[in-house]
Amino acid sequence: MRTTAQNAELALLLEVAGTPKPGNVDRHREYEDLRFEHFLAGAVGARAGLEMAAAGDPLGESFLATIEGMSEQRGGNTQFGALLLQLPLVAAAGDENRSLSPEGATAVVDATTVADAADFYRAFEAVDVAVDDPPEGMEPLDVRRGSDAVPELESRGLTLRDVMERSTDRDGVAREWVEGFERVFAAADAVEQGEGPVADRAARAFLELLADEVDTFVATKHDRATAESTSERARAALDGEIDPETLADEFVAEGINPGTTADIVAAGLFVALERGLDV
Amino acid sequence: MRTTAQNAELALLLEVAGTPKPGNVDRHREYEDLRFEHFLAGAVGARAGLEMAAAGDPLGESFLATIEGMSEQRGGNTQFGALLLQLPLVAAAGDENRSLSPEGATAVVDATTVADAADFYRAFEAVDVAVDDPPEGMEPLDVRRGSDAVPELESRGLTLRDVMERSTDRDGVAREWVEGFERVFAAADAVEQGEGPVADRAARAFLELLADEVDTFVATKHDRATAESTSERARAALDGEIDPETLADEFVAEGINPGTTADIVAAGLFVALERGLDV
Repeated sequence: MRTTAQNAELALLLEVAGTPKPGNVDRHREYEDLRFEHFLAGAVGARAGLEMAAAGDPLGESFLATIEGMSEQRGGNTQFGALLLQLPLVAAAGDENRSLSPEGATAVVDATTVADAADFYRAFEAVDVAVDDPPEGMEPLDVRRGSDAVPELESRGLTLRDVMERSTDRDGVAREWVEGFERVFAAADAVEQGEGPVADRAARAFLELLADEVDTFVATKHDRATAESTSERARAALDGEIDPETLADEFVAEGINPGTTADIVAAGLFVALERGLDV
Repeated sequence: MRTTAQNAELALLLEVAGTPKPGNVDRHREYEDLRFEHFLAGAVGARAGLEMAAAGDPLGESFLATIEGMSEQRGGNTQFGALLLQLPLVAAAGDENRSLSPEGATAVVDATTVADAADFYRAFEAVDVAVDDPPEGMEPLDVRRGSDAVPELESRGLTLRDVMERSTDRDGVAREWVEGFERVFAAADAVEQGEGPVADRAARAFLELLADEVDTFVATKHDRATAESTSERARAALDGEIDPETLADEFVAEGINPGTTADIVAAGLFVALERGLDV
């Protein structure tokens, strides 16, 4: 039987293998500076931190270790959001007093500390992550400041949950953290109920999630209107109005990468594997 | 920095990602019952055994652990030969008194015991591996007997090296073991000297190795003539007489899987990663 950390790593690999996954790197499409093989190396490198989280180490320390390990390749940020989303789930699955459920993962989130928040900020020093400018008044807590922001975090006494709560309006990963991982568990259900190769089911779940709700990474990188039209086009692909393969080529050409939706699929795959999904 | 076991796992992933790799599963081609995702799960599952080998545990025990872990997926044998070829290299790399070199790996091979041979036989119980009938007089040592053959191994006092030596005429992995891993190190050199994405270099090295020498897995599954024509066709692809993508489609249609050549590439990728190849 695979361990919890192995399932988390395998989920990252299955996520990137799923194709067509319009706009993201998958096993048929990649960017010159962000390639399929960077995701393979990112997943392998993250494993030690995943093992820490499963063993009950502090969430922030474990996350920092996943990101440092993930970064040992030349593609830059491959799975920052996916790992951030997986970690409370991995910690819940690894804790015999908790369960891998919305409640179990939320209990992990609720138990995060200021130290966890500090390590989360430190993780931004290991890799470049595309983020929006912070809202007015939040500049001292701009994640791009990395460890320079730690004194501010400490003086305000903000836990990692507190930090995530402040981003729910513009970050789909933060929203999952604070609102019970609803879409992650929906993705797990979709993968479990699907048929055929697991990577194909993951690609289908991706399209469904994207059609259902705007991708906040697209909104950050482009704008809200682009994110909305991205979801409409995903809906058209689901409805058979456009071939998903064609849509994938279009999104790649337009630089539209619905990365947050991919993060949710990666976390959903982890949940499904832990619940016994066969590969 | 990735650990030795991480590099071995990543090598397995990069090998299967390389495309086109005519006849084998790669990221653009798979078989209905042997899919790309089975190789992902196989690589993830093998890691614990790889860690054992890197830490100096007995080679046979470590190998058995890699195969048991690899088998936790529905595709069957994904990386048996690749892991068998990697293990002495991983053990040499992990041992501070040895080096990752033909000499270092050969010293590991020479130090194998009867107990290592017994665990090697036990590994055949975890997964179906395509092998030829044994030569006359060797029936009691047919690997397909698994642990039933162990008393015979013990009474003859055969080490794992001895077992491999008896297969060099029809198994390219055994030949590497006994003859100093020459083709593995040549593959590592080829990958290091190549340009562009590592997975592309691995695919190129595969074609070169296949053109250079018959694949013993093809000879086992089909016959010697098929194996020879397979190499000639690989040569034609290298010479630009046939598109490697076309050749890949042809080999898949004909059920020609040059698996031993892929094993050598996987081991070569490990050597290259350990020597500092960036991904």
